[in-house]
Amino acid sequence: MIIVNKLKIYLVIGMKNCIAAISEIKEMVEKAKLRGIETPHTRFPNQFPKCPYGLKGVYCILCANGPCRITEKTPYGVCGATADVIVARNLCRAVAAGASCYIHCAENAARALLSAGKGEGSYEIRNEKKLKFLAKKLGFDANKDAKQLAVEVAEFILGDMYKPRWEKSELVPKLCPEKRLEVFEKLDILPGGAKGEIVDALTKTSTNLNSNPMDLLVHCLRLGLHAGFTGLLMTCWLNDILFGSPKITVVENGFSSVKPNNVNIMMTGHQHALIQPLCEVAMEEDLIKMAKEAGAEEIKIIGATCNGQDMETRIAHLPESFVGYIANNFTTEPLVATGLIDAVVSEFNCTFHGLKFVAEKTKTKLICIDDMAYVEGAEFIEWNPENAKEKAREIIKKAIEAFKERKGMQKDYYDEKVTSVVGVGEESLVEFLGGSVKPLIELIANGKIKGVVGVVGCSNLASGGHDNIIVTLTKELIKRDILVLAGGCVNSPLKHAGLFDPGSAELAGENLKEVCKSLGIPPVLNFGACLSIARIEQVAVAIAEELGVDVPDLPVAASAPQWLEEQALADATYAVDMGFTVHVSPVPFVTGSELVTKVLTEAVEGLTGGKLIPEPNPYKAAEILENVIMKKRKKLGI
Amino acid sequence: MIIVNKLKIYLVIGMKNCIAAISEIKEMVEKAKLRGIETPHTRFPNQFPKCPYGLKGVYCILCANGPCRITEKTPYGVCGATADVIVARNLCRAVAAGASCYIHCAENAARALLSAGKGEGSYEIRNEKKLKFLAKKLGFDANKDAKQLAVEVAEFILGDMYKPRWEKSELVPKLCPEKRLEVFEKLDILPGGAKGEIVDALTKTSTNLNSNPMDLLVHCLRLGLHAGFTGLLMTCWLNDILFGSPKITVVENGFSSVKPNNVNIMMTGHQHALIQPLCEVAMEEDLIKMAKEAGAEEIKIIGATCNGQDMETRIAHLPESFVGYIANNFTTEPLVATGLIDAVVSEFNCTFHGLKFVAEKTKTKLICIDDMAYVEGAEFIEWNPENAKEKAREIIKKAIEAFKERKGMQKDYYDEKVTSVVGVGEESLVEFLGGSVKPLIELIANGKIKGVVGVVGCSNLASGGHDNIIVTLTKELIKRDILVLAGGCVNSPLKHAGLFDPGSAELAGENLKEVCKSLGIPPVLNFGACLSIARIEQVAVAIAEELGVDVPDLPVAASAPQWLEEQALADATYAVDMGFTVHVSPVPFVTGSELVTKVLTEAVEGLTGGKLIPEPNPYKAAEILENVIMKKRKKLGI
Repeated sequence: MIIVNKLKIYLVIGMKNCIAAISEIKEMVEKAKLRGIETPHTRFPNQFPKCPYGLKGVYCILCANGPCRITEKTPYGVCGATADVIVARNLCRAVAAGASCYIHCAENAARALLSAGKGEGSYEIRNEKKLKFLAKKLGFDANKDAKQLAVEVAEFILGDMYKPRWEKSELVPKLCPEKRLEVFEKLDILPGGAKGEIVDALTKTSTNLNSNPMDLLVHCLRLGLHAGFTGLLMTCWLNDILFGSPKITVVENGFSSVKPNNVNIMMTGHQHALIQPLCEVAMEEDLIKMAKEAGAEEIKIIGATCNGQDMETRIAHLPESFVGYIANNFTTEPLVATGLIDAVVSEFNCTFHGLKFVAEKTKTKLICIDDMAYVEGAEFIEWNPENAKEKAREIIKKAIEAFKERKGMQKDYYDEKVTSVVGVGEESLVEFLGGSVKPLIELIANGKIKGVVGVVGCSNLASGGHDNIIVTLTKELIKRDILVLAGGCVNSPLKHAGLFDPGSAELAGENLKEVCKSLGIPPVLNFGACLSIARIEQVAVAIAEELGVDVPDLPVAASAPQWLEEQALADATYAVDMGFTVHVSPVPFVTGSELVTKVLTEAVEGLTGGKLIPEPNPYKAAEILENVIMKKRKKLGI
Repeated sequence: MIIVNKLKIYLVIGMKNCIAAISEIKEMVEKAKLRGIETPHTRFPNQFPKCPYGLKGVYCILCANGPCRITEKTPYGVCGATADVIVARNLCRAVAAGASCYIHCAENAARALLSAGKGEGSYEIRNEKKLKFLAKKLGFDANKDAKQLAVEVAEFILGDMYKPRWEKSELVPKLCPEKRLEVFEKLDILPGGAKGEIVDALTKTSTNLNSNPMDLLVHCLRLGLHAGFTGLLMTCWLNDILFGSPKITVVENGFSSVKPNNVNIMMTGHQHALIQPLCEVAMEEDLIKMAKEAGAEEIKIIGATCNGQDMETRIAHLPESFVGYIANNFTTEPLVATGLIDAVVSEFNCTFHGLKFVAEKTKTKLICIDDMAYVEGAEFIEWNPENAKEKAREIIKKAIEAFKERKGMQKDYYDEKVTSVVGVGEESLVEFLGGSVKPLIELIANGKIKGVVGVVGCSNLASGGHDNIIVTLTKELIKRDILVLAGGCVNSPLKHAGLFDPGSAELAGENLKEVCKSLGIPPVLNFGACLSIARIEQVAVAIAEELGVDVPDLPVAASAPQWLEEQALADATYAVDMGFTVHVSPVPFVTGSELVTKVLTEAVEGLTGGKLIPEPNPYKAAEILENVIMKKRKKLGI
């Protein structure tokens, strides 16, 4: 099989290259190394050669008779499990874990909204319009008092999450576009409660339980719906209600936003609700005074990982303490290694264990506010919606303390700054287009825009180095007049490479360049965090509904060019549910099973209209994605 | 470290021996092989050599940069995760999965009780006394109408399971013995809702989230409490309410109970509630007539895996269609390979994927009634409490059909039959002792019984062959005047080896022999399923409370001499929570981390009073367990 051969090439060549695409990051890594600080980039080559069984997904460690490894000569584990069973089981457990991550973020956002509704804590409702929109969608009387409505909406969402699997979710169908709902009903993949589905996936994949690959894959499709609707979409929308919807804004920032004379607090995670209080109290006079007394100029919150982006989409509503989005997952360690960061506040992933070792060298204070992302050695100051601001003050004081203690430490300042258009979302885009997606449809119909690709998800080191494939693929796509909607860690290199600057229109093909120039937009639209995959999907749905077709009919595709995490696998499942053709690299750990590989890359298209296309080469990937788009255009008769 | 050396020995020697301890099973395996049917026993040697990274727990496949493997030369994964982090993460996820399995069983039992209370389905309340006992424990007015009470109790339990982690479980503290509750409160390990704790463990152990080994281990302790109280204990007690409490009974059965001229339906799983309807409808006249018309004499339900045992503890209340407990986890495939089984009904683990291949050869019909245990190729007939009997009739008809179609197939009948005392439980034991545990305490105090060891859990092939260590260790313990309370797959070899026969008193030490003879009991008491670990713990608690001491003070220990599953890891965690010293073999997959190994085998004793002792050699293990008991006797001054 071609895919297996692709994996073989990866294994043989080794692809040990983990040089960063962005020159400043490359320099940070090199300087850190010289000072004896390891980063993912320097640890990566040590892990070669890779275990071929793991790469193919045929490694099982569910029982004391194991580990078992499937080969041509030993096609069965001790329990009789085949490669198909082991691969499907591993995948289903990973998708369940990924889904559980997103549900956690939505759960905390709902708790914050509940507290805002009750008027009991650190949160308030800043976007009543969005609250009413959501309330209406969920079947509530939107004319009620906002606080009352907030309580009802939050309780409904939390209640739905905690339904057992044997009671159907009411939330998911209410969020589903109509045509998709029909498909999900026909496939019988509308899920029970989110937590119930996740726990049951964990149970199914335990020792000597479910050994039915097809059932496990169908379970993945159910989990994907919760990951997408209950997790991604609800986290986005609840945060919109609490902090304002994304607003198109032009920002100028970059590594230069991390100034040596500020108290710099970098966050890692996915939960705007948990970091907002930090931004707010960082503006309080007594704390600023305290910082000044410690010798600092200001207190700054440095946006890193997906939450940095999620917050940047709402930067128009945020206080100045938030400098914007600076670093993706693999940039965090190099950035801390510069010595510029006084404290890291972790509330979710991506929070690498390596931060512990970098922080030890740079005397950076590690604080954890959600034990989900508890790094060994961090101080745990637990978030809860009732006293989040009080805790935030405590954290800022500790960061100021760290700033004082870190005086005299080496700090490598980087003067990099870029212009980016941020804050594109399903609402702000429509607003920008004059109130409807019709202008976008026209541009697609008349061929000025050939199609749209959502370039989303993580960065990794395994696909030809940190960020490299992301940048190469995106450039290739826009060159082909394909508009890119970007969300996730992919946005860091796209930002640092200037692709969110309207000036990058010059890199696009002639038609797309013309469109961008006339509208004053870049050819790559920054949707923010990986969470915003749900927003990109909302745009696709809006186009489909306007045209009266279903999502898989659109000249639209997706790519996770450097996926990393279990969450990315949940994202991909959601995208397949929604009918997207999804390019992924590297090849997921499924090639040991011909059955699972065929289902994911071929057969599932007959069910949902979506499928995966693994392709490590970004040039080939761009060509494949263009072909997908052209085929769909042809079918639509445009 | 000694433990690491023990693992090395295991790796070097290979321990490829997987000969079954019971001669009939050995013969079944050999005959199957001659007919081209593989069993776990013949697949086991093919998986050598084992992956040393997996055996040590230092293998990570949470992200696309992986798999990562920790060695002395490469002490960090790409993300910076150390051996401690990877080992703790793998363990925590496994314990969460194990806990989720037991919670699932309790959940379905509660659903059956709820349906009985509502009078809507296939279940009724047969043990009002137990219902009132539990209701009182949970704080309900036990004088209410039984049906009303059943609804309230079931809804309370189900509601508690689905609480989030940020709301404390009310169920667990209500089931906790007082002195243990104080310990758990002090350690702050009283959990939130069961499903919430499980999902959060899955989230914590996902890519780049929690990398704090101690926090992950503490999370395990919380999960252990749910596994034990919400999972094991509630499943036992809810089934007691529905079907009667265990009653001491002498049975005569064995492989001879599987007769070629009967319609033989073997079950695999852990859920009495799901199989009870099968036993009941198997007695219905029209179905028996149908079976006779097909040429069979009777319809028989063959107890296998833990549910076979759980039901056997209640055999006094069951119809004759249930023949008793015949086969443990690794005996199921050899038993099906004899050709005697017409249908296998799976409702939980242990349901090996290998059954698919055996069943294909023997034309045995595979039916699954809970998709948790869905084997590829099985027919899925979903259980629900409302129409369980109707579905059971459907299943029996399919089994009769299979019997017809299987006519002329080779069937190897085994004439083995043993006498066993079954149905020992926390209630029936006290009843047997005259209403209190005092007589048992006296026997311990005067040294007639040196102490008590719970020999529990699975069987495996990795520890010196199928069932071998279980039998050897148990014989060694009784020889030392140590009373053995047995529960789990361990009971199959103990039964077939005649150790539940009062005649086996001859194998015990002089003092224990005298006790057994005077009471007419065997030196190994059969508590039933692995679920009954909770019953054994109840006995220990009763003794401790009578003496006014805490569980860890008692001359009592536990052993999982051939643990297999993730569930076993949850069991072990629960036992450690409860203050038991627990012997385990083989060495769990944790030795790659000195920290985790030290915590589990030493440090945790300072917290809960319990700990793990890994020891592959059964003779040495018996000596260690005796020493533990002698030390505790000394401390108690007896």
